[in-house]
Amino acid sequence: MIANQYKEMLQAKSVIRELFQYATDRGKEIGYENVYDYSLGNPSVPVPQKFTDVMMELLATQEPVALHGYSPTLGIPQVREKIAASLAKRFGLPYTMDEIFMTSGAAGAIAHALRAVSVAGDEILTFAPFFPEYGPYVNLTGAVLRVVPPRVEDFQIHFEALEEMLNEKTAAVLINTPNNPSGVVYSEETIQRLAALLRARSAEYGHDIYLISDEPYREIVFDGAKAPCVSRYYENTIVCYSFSKSLSLPGERIGYVAVNPACKDAKTIVQMCGQISRGIGHNCPSSIIQLAVAEVLEETADLSVYEKNRNVLYEELLRLGFSCVKPDGTFYIFPKALEEDAKAFSEKAKKYDLMLVPGDSFGCAGYFRMSYCIAPEKVERSLEALRRFVEECYPNRNMEQR
Amino acid sequence: MIANQYKEMLQAKSVIRELFQYATDRGKEIGYENVYDYSLGNPSVPVPQKFTDVMMELLATQEPVALHGYSPTLGIPQVREKIAASLAKRFGLPYTMDEIFMTSGAAGAIAHALRAVSVAGDEILTFAPFFPEYGPYVNLTGAVLRVVPPRVEDFQIHFEALEEMLNEKTAAVLINTPNNPSGVVYSEETIQRLAALLRARSAEYGHDIYLISDEPYREIVFDGAKAPCVSRYYENTIVCYSFSKSLSLPGERIGYVAVNPACKDAKTIVQMCGQISRGIGHNCPSSIIQLAVAEVLEETADLSVYEKNRNVLYEELLRLGFSCVKPDGTFYIFPKALEEDAKAFSEKAKKYDLMLVPGDSFGCAGYFRMSYCIAPEKVERSLEALRRFVEECYPNRNMEQR
Repeated sequence: MIANQYKEMLQAKSVIRELFQYATDRGKEIGYENVYDYSLGNPSVPVPQKFTDVMMELLATQEPVALHGYSPTLGIPQVREKIAASLAKRFGLPYTMDEIFMTSGAAGAIAHALRAVSVAGDEILTFAPFFPEYGPYVNLTGAVLRVVPPRVEDFQIHFEALEEMLNEKTAAVLINTPNNPSGVVYSEETIQRLAALLRARSAEYGHDIYLISDEPYREIVFDGAKAPCVSRYYENTIVCYSFSKSLSLPGERIGYVAVNPACKDAKTIVQMCGQISRGIGHNCPSSIIQLAVAEVLEETADLSVYEKNRNVLYEELLRLGFSCVKPDGTFYIFPKALEEDAKAFSEKAKKYDLMLVPGDSFGCAGYFRMSYCIAPEKVERSLEALRRFVEECYPNRNMEQR
Repeated sequence: MIANQYKEMLQAKSVIRELFQYATDRGKEIGYENVYDYSLGNPSVPVPQKFTDVMMELLATQEPVALHGYSPTLGIPQVREKIAASLAKRFGLPYTMDEIFMTSGAAGAIAHALRAVSVAGDEILTFAPFFPEYGPYVNLTGAVLRVVPPRVEDFQIHFEALEEMLNEKTAAVLINTPNNPSGVVYSEETIQRLAALLRARSAEYGHDIYLISDEPYREIVFDGAKAPCVSRYYENTIVCYSFSKSLSLPGERIGYVAVNPACKDAKTIVQMCGQISRGIGHNCPSSIIQLAVAEVLEETADLSVYEKNRNVLYEELLRLGFSCVKPDGTFYIFPKALEEDAKAFSEKAKKYDLMLVPGDSFGCAGYFRMSYCIAPEKVERSLEALRRFVEECYPNRNMEQR
């Protein structure tokens, strides 16, 4: 009796993965360098050299039994301490190691956070456009994911819709800023208004509504700006962080849960994460990766490449007549397609070796995502294909909509 | 509304962890080298040098974006291929990468295997004495763990009890051979009889009963023997393996699920594991650890230390009047306590700086576990304390029971 729930999931195909597979196959025909693959969100710049140096030093100098030994359930204490100290310094909140739980990236962090604050039947609200994996992340806990429709003019929060959808069953609101796929950073005003609303509804319903803040792109913000620190605005915030994007370490599966020290149950929630681990077989990220990352907490890979790509693509898209919200960060851009059916649009683009992901699976039909974590040289080369695609397929497009 | 299920788990304290904490605190008073700490199952011998060399070489020569890039959901293909080839060669079963799913150690493997073959309300049977974490591993999936009482004369399977407990709700049987805490390896006869029984009951109930075989100690077998390969005897076997013990890498969280190629749903189960991961936030072990382990699949740490310790302790325990099944492998021994209440027995031993874990949490009251993954020199020094403890506290013990 194999479990049908998971077997049935095999039928649903990931649009992003399929497109990437197509790009890979096409690459075998014409050379992958000639495929303008904007499908996957894989960092394209190397980890800082210091990380590699620290890894080599740990391997060369540490006693192997200790180096590769079990991490305590919540993570290696000195690693949690260093993360807490770094967060305290950067964001001015009194984090201690007791608010930090080490995880296998943001996916692991969200898996723990969701289980800590919801039970089967509860509702989790998120906002379109959203990372499609939120579906299985939430639904397989037994809670229900409900998606607040997008505010397409700027991809901030559609508050009228949110106010209607919040109810007594709402256990948590899951946000992602800077956002995949829109690249938009929630403004201070958005976060303040969200915090006030959640506080009011928590009081009305007689239970805390948690804010789960998925922040893997926190460090990738452009124009010298910084993303507002969500925890500074709302006490019951659980940050889910990953080093995958900022340090270009997606395969090493390292991140953390950081519960706002102002949350009255902060320490309990971290302890509970340790218990949740026993049920989901998590048992900490790799010990050596924990130790190495702790030495490069204030570093990032060279993220300037993403800003350069954003500038080139955004300008060219506007020039070609696209309507598009300017990304504040990440390595994504989410323009409106040139016809209503973004799947058809994306299908046509494939003929020009352009891989554009239709927005439907992000909960936002009629838009498409480009992941520009690729070499700037390739972005430049792709512009000619983009121009030909648009001019040949949409000669009568409305140049006024932008 | 934090989730009470996990909050309540915080009340239950782990006897093993508490004893280890006591040992650590006591070590601060008298020096840890003078605490005869048989509490934890942490490997005490270093990983093979080749692993360290491979890690250094990967870091020195590989392009970082690729080296630390995302692993595909099921694991890195060439790693899965190498594991399949190694298993095929060693055990004579036609494994391919399609039967292998990479996991964060055995805990991650069991979390996936359980979810693949059971749903809420199903029963999972295991055998006392058993690793206490099986409780949360199973119960937090929504299935129910039922424990078959021990066959204390040799810690093989108590078949009469098993036959009574198997029923239509049985989704899987979870075994652990070589066994923590008894050190016993199931004989070929035991496995054959188990396989025949499960086949008969599968036919009777009209659904497959899976055998989940937790095998982290597979490589630690004494007297030149080998543990019988469970998959060779039962088609619906799901092996959960970890490199934690054989390579002394517990903190690096690396292992795999290997579904018997003879299982008709083998490939589907592996694909399902990828879907289960989305729900529990697993997303593969570390990429660099996967790549490094793949180069040392046929190696082990120097495991001879554990056999040496087994010999010394077993002989001394018998000499002192203990009744004890001789371990065939692992680094555990599970003698009968010298009074009915093993907790009281263990408490008295602490006065001699001997850390002995009472068997109650392994589902086997009246016994105690010693983890002898410690330096042989320390085992030798502990014998004097063991003698004094036994002679002073149990002068009238029955010397005939052995």
